[in-house]
Amino acid sequence: MIHITRRERFNAAHRLFKPEYSDEKNLQVFGKCSNPNWHGHNYELFVTVSGEIDPETGFLINLKGLSKLIRERIIEKIDHKNINLEVEFMKGRMASTENLAIAIWEQLEKPILALGSKLHCIKVYESENNYVEYFG
Amino acid sequence: MIHITRRERFNAAHRLFKPEYSDEKNLQVFGKCSNPNWHGHNYELFVTVSGEIDPETGFLINLKGLSKLIRERIIEKIDHKNINLEVEFMKGRMASTENLAIAIWEQLEKPILALGSKLHCIKVYESENNYVEYFG
Amino acid sequence: MIHITRRERFNAAHRLFKPEYSDEKNLQVFGKCSNPNWHGHNYELFVTVSGEIDPETGFLINLKGLSKLIRERIIEKIDHKNINLEVEFMKGRMASTENLAIAIWEQLEKPILALGSKLHCIKVYESENNYVEYFG
Amino acid sequence: MIHITRRERFNAAHRLFKPEYSDEKNLQVFGKCSNPNWHGHNYELFVTVSGEIDPETGFLINLKGLSKLIRERIIEKIDHKNINLEVEFMKGRMASTENLAIAIWEQLEKPILALGSKLHCIKVYESENNYVEYFG
Amino acid sequence: MIHITRRERFNAAHRLFKPEYSDEKNLQVFGKCSNPNWHGHNYELFVTVSGEIDPETGFLINLKGLSKLIRERIIEKIDHKNINLEVEFMKGRMASTENLAIAIWEQLEKPILALGSKLHCIKVYESENNYVEYFG
Amino acid sequence: MIHITRRERFNAAHRLFKPEYSDEKNLQVFGKCSNPNWHGHNYELFVTVSGEIDPETGFLINLKGLSKLIRERIIEKIDHKNINLEVEFMKGRMASTENLAIAIWEQLEKPILALGSKLHCIKVYESENNYVEYFG
Repeated sequence: MIHITRRERFNAAHRLFKPEYSDEKNLQVFGKCSNPNWHGHNYELFVTVSGEIDPETGFLINLKGLSKLIRERIIEKIDHKNINLEVEFMKGRMASTENLAIAIWEQLEKPILALGSKLHCIKVYESENNYVEYFG
Repeated sequence: MIHITRRERFNAAHRLFKPEYSDEKNLQVFGKCSNPNWHGHNYELFVTVSGEIDPETGFLINLKGLSKLIRERIIEKIDHKNINLEVEFMKGRMASTENLAIAIWEQLEKPILALGSKLHCIKVYESENNYVEYFG
Repeated sequence: MIHITRRERFNAAHRLFKPEYSDEKNLQVFGKCSNPNWHGHNYELFVTVSGEIDPETGFLINLKGLSKLIRERIIEKIDHKNINLEVEFMKGRMASTENLAIAIWEQLEKPILALGSKLHCIKVYESENNYVEYFG
Repeated sequence: MIHITRRERFNAAHRLFKPEYSDEKNLQVFGKCSNPNWHGHNYELFVTVSGEIDPETGFLINLKGLSKLIRERIIEKIDHKNINLEVEFMKGRMASTENLAIAIWEQLEKPILALGSKLHCIKVYESENNYVEYFG
Repeated sequence: MIHITRRERFNAAHRLFKPEYSDEKNLQVFGKCSNPNWHGHNYELFVTVSGEIDPETGFLINLKGLSKLIRERIIEKIDHKNINLEVEFMKGRMASTENLAIAIWEQLEKPILALGSKLHCIKVYESENNYVEYFG
Repeated sequence: MIHITRRERFNAAHRLFKPEYSDEKNLQVFGKCSNPNWHGHNYELFVTVSGEIDPETGFLINLKGLSKLIRERIIEKIDHKNINLEVEFMKGRMASTENLAIAIWEQLEKPILALGSKLHCIKVYESENNYVEYFG
């Protein structure tokens, strides 16, 4: 079993809140993350794929192709954006790191299969102290 | 000559734009940073002070006191906030990292003097690839 | 399957030795780590939990609650302490990183269950070159 | 289940190309990595072993012994070397990070068993954005 | 006084040796770095400029412009290359990190002046344990 | 002006306290760092030297020689030791990071001069959030 991982980065604004909650309840549940004027992060995204090594090239996957895919499907849509307002694949979901990891998985699973590999893990760092890993 | 540095961190949303510019000009000058719906960063703040070592304690400055000061004057006012809309000490300034470093200097210079040390440098990381240092 | 990880840090002194060994044998087995006058580390602790995402909040676990728990159960009891002499949950165990990871697991497993999640992994860095992962 | 990991580092030159390909095809498949005059990396190697904890020492494995083993079997043979031309255990293989991880596994699996533990994972970082994990 | 720093990265092969030295003398002076078959590094380059803040934009320098400049003048010429054989601006110089920092300074000093700023420091990391800073 | 920096690391136990203070006063001034049973850190030491580049070798200083010097004069005397009890060059001084940086400067200044370079800065990291720089 062999995995290869590519790191990409993006910066975005977001907010955690529920419109049906009162301001007090939002503050109680989501703390400072519920700030109505947004806050933001430098996110780090680690995409891990598994597969067979091509005996011809020695590659599990061509990392240039994987990087291009991640940029087209994820980074260009979320970098320097507002996750709540502008990111199509996060529409209708709480902008938590957990949901972000799941949504990124959904965006990448099939295109990675089309490249001949299997998506194994999406890891998203929200800060140096917190990260989420989703395995599908 | 001796310096001691304390690192603190904050997350915030911001936007670079000029209201008097057209959208095209804002995009041309500020690129993706002009996004009207904001984006954000995990900022790292390094506060460096100089001074004399207290022969009794071996300290240039009590780092607990310095950390408390930075948190009260800076972190509590900017963490999980929108720099353009909510941060008093950034009012009327472009929310660039350069201006952020200068404004933080202005907030900390006198209180650090009151603790018996001299502010030497404010260093602000906006991303792993960019940082600003201001020396007053 | 989804995991979320919280990092916390602590500094502590420790020593690796067996009272029934001679000084020579302690030195031979434990090297410099057997120094009778102690040495110490900046430990990094990564606590990974698994579970279901609450559709209401988008959270697997409230990280503020998890952080508070780790601080109360672990950090307050070990930070700036001597692991051999002062840490209740390490009593009677060799102060190795392996045993530290296991003891931290035992302290956190039930309280994390009480928060509605499942402890998945305790990872302890002793230095930038060494870490232990315990999965229960 | 418990794992312990040791990090070691090496610097090496390499090149990705197939002698039977034309220069154009090499460039197309391997990009800049096919440069005939070589390029190089600071590689990071993480060796993870699993096993039982010796109740006497509290150790899964003596890290000094593990480090010595990795240095003798891997680092001394690859550090400051040309992976394509000089590294015995990479002879006849494409010098990809994937193949490097597999070859290092083959070099270490038995000697680690002889130390009483089981090799669990070889992780090789080629750059801060790319790494491979091999699990045998 | 205010500085802004941009980090860029490149990978390259190199060798330290003097053709007029015997192999023994090369080995004695340059150690493993004299390996005739090359070795290589992931270099990190930090370019620090100083200047005045444009009151209109809040920028000392447009980092996009600075990054583009560094890529055109340095990265495209050295990334995935052999420093001894292929890098025009290193011709005739020992491929030490010191000389690399000086040569990069010479390449960037005037173009940065043309952008309206002043080059303050070139910092080059060769490994996590070694770096050079050149101030002109 | 050109500087080169070498990083070395050491782990040590220490305690901040004054025997003439009461326990209460020690706790008030030094906080958790006054723990009578010690605590410890992974220290990082950065030694920066300045000088002229040898046109023959391209070196400001031979880093192997500098590393050997730092290990002999500092690391072997402080690594895995108790700074208060066992480190000759810290005798009679408070074991603060400030005093540690000054004492290391005193140990290295002349031997580095004997190698033909000039010590420029001693930087000591006590944790990821705190460091001291001493310039003589």
